[in-house]
Amino acid sequence: MTSRDGYQWTEKSGLIKGVPSLGVIQPPTNIKDEQAVYDVIVIGAGYCGLTAARDAALSGLKVLLLEARDRIGGRSWSSNIEGYPFEMGGTWVSWGQPHVWREISRYEMRDQLEISHDYSRGVNYFSLNSSSSSRNMSHDDEDKLMESALKKFANVDGQYGRIIMPFPHSESHNPEAAKFDKMSVADRMAQIKDDLSPDEHTALLGFVLLCSCSTPEKTSFYEYLHWWALCNYSYEYCIEYLIKYKFKGGQSSFAINFFREARATGNLSYAFNTPVATVKDNESDVEVTARDGKTYKAARLISAIPMNILKDVTFSPPLIVGKLEASQTSHVNKCVKVHAEVRDRNLRSWSGITYPNNSLMYAIGDGTTPSGNTHIVAFGGSHNQLQPEKDINKTLSALQAMTPMDIERVVFHNWADDEFARGAWFFSPPGLVTKHLQELRAPQGNIYFANSDWAVGWRSFIDGAIEEGTRAAFAVKKDLDRTRSSHL
Amino acid sequence: MTSRDGYQWTEKSGLIKGVPSLGVIQPPTNIKDEQAVYDVIVIGAGYCGLTAARDAALSGLKVLLLEARDRIGGRSWSSNIEGYPFEMGGTWVSWGQPHVWREISRYEMRDQLEISHDYSRGVNYFSLNSSSSSRNMSHDDEDKLMESALKKFANVDGQYGRIIMPFPHSESHNPEAAKFDKMSVADRMAQIKDDLSPDEHTALLGFVLLCSCSTPEKTSFYEYLHWWALCNYSYEYCIEYLIKYKFKGGQSSFAINFFREARATGNLSYAFNTPVATVKDNESDVEVTARDGKTYKAARLISAIPMNILKDVTFSPPLIVGKLEASQTSHVNKCVKVHAEVRDRNLRSWSGITYPNNSLMYAIGDGTTPSGNTHIVAFGGSHNQLQPEKDINKTLSALQAMTPMDIERVVFHNWADDEFARGAWFFSPPGLVTKHLQELRAPQGNIYFANSDWAVGWRSFIDGAIEEGTRAAFAVKKDLDRTRSSHL
Repeated sequence: MTSRDGYQWTEKSGLIKGVPSLGVIQPPTNIKDEQAVYDVIVIGAGYCGLTAARDAALSGLKVLLLEARDRIGGRSWSSNIEGYPFEMGGTWVSWGQPHVWREISRYEMRDQLEISHDYSRGVNYFSLNSSSSSRNMSHDDEDKLMESALKKFANVDGQYGRIIMPFPHSESHNPEAAKFDKMSVADRMAQIKDDLSPDEHTALLGFVLLCSCSTPEKTSFYEYLHWWALCNYSYEYCIEYLIKYKFKGGQSSFAINFFREARATGNLSYAFNTPVATVKDNESDVEVTARDGKTYKAARLISAIPMNILKDVTFSPPLIVGKLEASQTSHVNKCVKVHAEVRDRNLRSWSGITYPNNSLMYAIGDGTTPSGNTHIVAFGGSHNQLQPEKDINKTLSALQAMTPMDIERVVFHNWADDEFARGAWFFSPPGLVTKHLQELRAPQGNIYFANSDWAVGWRSFIDGAIEEGTRAAFAVKKDLDRTRSSHL
Repeated sequence: MTSRDGYQWTEKSGLIKGVPSLGVIQPPTNIKDEQAVYDVIVIGAGYCGLTAARDAALSGLKVLLLEARDRIGGRSWSSNIEGYPFEMGGTWVSWGQPHVWREISRYEMRDQLEISHDYSRGVNYFSLNSSSSSRNMSHDDEDKLMESALKKFANVDGQYGRIIMPFPHSESHNPEAAKFDKMSVADRMAQIKDDLSPDEHTALLGFVLLCSCSTPEKTSFYEYLHWWALCNYSYEYCIEYLIKYKFKGGQSSFAINFFREARATGNLSYAFNTPVATVKDNESDVEVTARDGKTYKAARLISAIPMNILKDVTFSPPLIVGKLEASQTSHVNKCVKVHAEVRDRNLRSWSGITYPNNSLMYAIGDGTTPSGNTHIVAFGGSHNQLQPEKDINKTLSALQAMTPMDIERVVFHNWADDEFARGAWFFSPPGLVTKHLQELRAPQGNIYFANSDWAVGWRSFIDGAIEEGTRAAFAVKKDLDRTRSSHL
């Protein structure tokens, strides 16, 4: 099935909207009784909503899952073109991510992972293009450069962040950490600029902006420190946990298990292509009105709507001030993820950073397609925003500016322009996360709010989405059990 | 409530069998209908059985949980004496353990963890007592010594095990790794003996035998490498994942959540004090006969019986040869875990290894009791087997041989002599794990076998128990759904 989301381009076909994906659900709805009152409505079929819907359905609750798109996965999904998966948003997973690993283990997909990089053949170098110089170096030298730069950046306490943020899965454990949310990455760069070589400067910003897909000024240093703490305070584990292991069949081959398991309970009703306009908490129940005017009712509601979109849905009673303010401020990740299928087999072992004079800043050889071509994945952000669907030639040039390549196909998802996401994975601007995290996590009346955007562990990741979906389903079940037993 | 398990001793009271624990369940059974036929019977209420019973009950199956002891937790439980938890078996957990962390997160217990060691006050040294020397060193020097020794030990491939065992959660991914199961720890020591200083030799054996609680000859080098790979191939993460974070309220405060959640579904029947004698698979159902002659029936059965005990239960049809052979061979962990409450406040920051001339080999300052005393935990194994319930004076001497201490109370569980465990956490002798792992994991007819002893990730750990309980409940649900829908 082909999703409306994403774009593909070849010289022959030109730009085509939509790409095929295992995550597209047919038929798009299974609702039989339009008057049904559910135990819980879940809005959003990304990993968070899928987990919440699955856990609630497994626990015997009657669930309605509503999704604006034609597919599951939300900001994390894979396309499948001629048998090869391109990851449109979200890619890498690891056993260092506990919630995601529990599911990989449970669905017996441990052996379905492969490693993105392959340094066994080809050019086997890293290209570093700054405003003043351009050169290639070995991956060993890349690692040394990165490690040195990242350690200087994170070393706020003489222990590379271990003292300031000792519990990565409870990052506010040490209240001293909060002060770093007053700082941007630009502020931190200014503190250490005399310690950095020009290469370290470029490599560091390339890596940090790969995390936030924003500008140094708009990227919270605290949030970066949290990622760093989650990655065992080391560059080695940044690679290990952030950018190494992916699903051989694409991650929609993983997400579909959640949906199928939920459906198999017999407790799941669902409707795709159903953007929500309003959510009304009547105290006795919650009523959802879709953009098409249809209404749905349930005892409880789990909103798995991303933070940047919350403000676009009308809640009644209105969202508490903290939630609304956070949504209006918005997180800053404006990732444009561009895949290039290139005829250069030697680029399989290539990686590169080009910053600041390009609209893509980080790329790696990510796979080999069935025809033997190399698959390159590249990331751009708001420091120099690309709009590939509006200017494919600029996109092709931005790819070439990373390293010369002979491009056969381009596949991309422009998350910055996606109306149901308004950005890719969460990344906090200075001040937002420490100020609003607790408010974002709080329920309101019969409405529970769950999203990777406010997870406490791997916030921004598939793992955080599953953490949050798990939390919401557990809370709703407890709430309904308590309410209903007190009515007996 | 007081469990029959474990022992406590004070000078005044002498030796008393049994210790209080949050894990003791009252009333010991809730069975109403003795003729009921269940969807699934789960044998064993350790973390594996608890997880299986909980997940099955949550998914709507009618579950009967049978347990030989008077408490939940199996080989992992905490006593609670005068408001202070002593961990009787199993203690430490971490976010590096995905299944356990998913549950800690789900039960909102992230902030219920504390760190065992406290180097902020007191003697602040590590005692290393070998057959030829006895000395104290700083914990920094301890770390350096340990790191150096452990790296030499694990460095079979020039990359500290990363090449030979690249996927710790799928350790047989590289078939080359299997050859190390032909080697014992003694064999590996012989290979590197010229590279080790006498201190490194003692420290290394003290640490490795803390893992296996056996002798170097009987400890599989492969299994140790697997632990090492799980710990990010580093001493730092051996400490981080194996011996750092524990539950403030003792781990029975964690386990009880699984039981309560299962019970709250209304789908859980249970009987404690019910050792099982026979399990008979009649094809149409499974029949369990307890030692007291009572029988129970279900469509499926999950045996969460530990490997060393499998041979003590009569299965009909009999266990496949591989399972029986593994149970008869037995894993080698004969841990005796001894807690000492001591009047020496300065020992809070002490740790030590005494090897080989003592029957306890590893100990650390693990906490401060409500009266301000120091809590020391010490481990012994089969290299010099202690039987504290038979000779408490020898136990007191073994503690004093670690470092002089003024002992007020001793609490212990002798796992080697426990009839329902015949050993503590799984540790493989050479040859067993690579030969029998797949056979141990295989179902037989209507019977599923689940236990941390044959987990693929954190085998031997609470995490592995949850991994296995999750696997079994998932498989049984799928099996019953398939069977029953085909009968419609």
